[in-house]
Amino acid sequence: MDTCLAGTMTIIDRLYKRVEERGPICVGLDPAEDLYPPGFLKKFSSPAQAALAFSQEIVAATADLVACYKVQIAHFEALGVEGLQAYRDLLRWLRKEGLIVIGDVKRGDIASTAAHYAKAHFGGEFSADFLTINALFGFDALTPFLSYLESGKHGFFVLVRTSNPTASEFQDLLVDGRPFYEHVAERVALWGEKFRGECGYSLIGAVVGAHREVLARLRPRFPTLFFLVPGYGAQGGRARDVAPAFREGNGAVVVAARAILGAHRGKPDSAERFPHYAREAVLAMREDLAQCLR
Amino acid sequence: MDTCLAGTMTIIDRLYKRVEERGPICVGLDPAEDLYPPGFLKKFSSPAQAALAFSQEIVAATADLVACYKVQIAHFEALGVEGLQAYRDLLRWLRKEGLIVIGDVKRGDIASTAAHYAKAHFGGEFSADFLTINALFGFDALTPFLSYLESGKHGFFVLVRTSNPTASEFQDLLVDGRPFYEHVAERVALWGEKFRGECGYSLIGAVVGAHREVLARLRPRFPTLFFLVPGYGAQGGRARDVAPAFREGNGAVVVAARAILGAHRGKPDSAERFPHYAREAVLAMREDLAQCLR
Repeated sequence: MDTCLAGTMTIIDRLYKRVEERGPICVGLDPAEDLYPPGFLKKFSSPAQAALAFSQEIVAATADLVACYKVQIAHFEALGVEGLQAYRDLLRWLRKEGLIVIGDVKRGDIASTAAHYAKAHFGGEFSADFLTINALFGFDALTPFLSYLESGKHGFFVLVRTSNPTASEFQDLLVDGRPFYEHVAERVALWGEKFRGECGYSLIGAVVGAHREVLARLRPRFPTLFFLVPGYGAQGGRARDVAPAFREGNGAVVVAARAILGAHRGKPDSAERFPHYAREAVLAMREDLAQCLR
Repeated sequence: MDTCLAGTMTIIDRLYKRVEERGPICVGLDPAEDLYPPGFLKKFSSPAQAALAFSQEIVAATADLVACYKVQIAHFEALGVEGLQAYRDLLRWLRKEGLIVIGDVKRGDIASTAAHYAKAHFGGEFSADFLTINALFGFDALTPFLSYLESGKHGFFVLVRTSNPTASEFQDLLVDGRPFYEHVAERVALWGEKFRGECGYSLIGAVVGAHREVLARLRPRFPTLFFLVPGYGAQGGRARDVAPAFREGNGAVVVAARAILGAHRGKPDSAERFPHYAREAVLAMREDLAQCLR
């Protein structure tokens, strides 16, 4: 273990502990009109205010059951300046509540520009505990983010293998007989070596979609990479698909967004009871995952 | 040529015409404190207001000499909500002035999230003529952007081979004996086939850094791809490096940012005359490029 992080409770140790205590669910806060219950939007002065309030209601109903929240900045960016104000306010509120927040920003750029993104999302108004990062630019694009990792207070997940249907077009291309994404994972694990927390996982983790074979291939080879696993539920992944992401029930969080946020659809009294249905959906997901993690 | 775009003056045709009339320079608007002349920042109520004003002064001094402007959103995002308000206002002002604007956002995500980015940057408050896009997710991540291309009013440049030192780590990995970036270029050219303008180039172009060999390799093979070429000047690229990007003096724009914005540094009366020095730097760059494009 690297001495500079030893003895401190790093953010990856906090996440590891949350998974132990509350299970491995990460609720994705992707607020969108089609997920709101009837009449919800018109209660607010703007779509941005509705997005903030909807997210807060979902959080209030689920916080004791989940490891962390992932906030999708695109859904706020689509609402313009006021949307980004709501994104900022949501992140501040979540962190003030002691909850762990992943800013799903997928930023990636050359070093000098990446420094501005690092400032925005680790050091500035949009500060999150973790970020998602696109590393197509290679290592020097990540260096501005690393200085924030030295405090142990921030970490990030690099896109390794995503969960969308056409992810294979580029990510699965074979390089020396192994898929492109595995080469990315190798570099990511190497970069993260010096940022390991007490739990053994690094502050630099990997985004790996809910593909059984991919997870089974990567998990044993990269024991220091904590996995952020999208693609469960609405995107088709099931408990058996995500099971290989885990080691002793930890080392990964599984993201669900639309299946939780929209759980109220077609149910009675959804306008008032949508947070209750979100909670029920989290409980059902927890049960589903527990069967595979036993 | 595809009938759906025939007869309209698409944005790629407008860009092509600008290159004919004004030359192939794209000024990168990456406002940052270290590029401001002495005393500039303190004239404004906030860093965001300074970034907006600095950008506008640079534009006013150079607009008749350049093909387009590329606005780097990271520099505004680092300034928080007010920074993004300045980004919005700058884009609106540039487009109102009849100038062509590339929003350098490098967004890339799965389809449903990409739809929100497309709304933000083509259909919403941050609307630009062109965007830069990261296509690591494959084709379905681009589909939400394509519907905006059908009007002919928007286009985008996909990251193919970037200009930073460690770009080679992933982008140059060999797949079937050819670099990864070439496989990306092939797909990008295919996706853009149905969006060709009157000029022969597609509304879907490629970001290719100022590497002589890379440009020489890609230019003849992908005649419909318009190139956005970063890496000239401050990043080390010279006229001879970017020359192979062109066919008959068109088909590419070369980006310069810091070399133009910071041209005043160490010069007399820079506080008042920084726009003049920016203009001089653009004229010098034009001369430098012209020698290689003859």
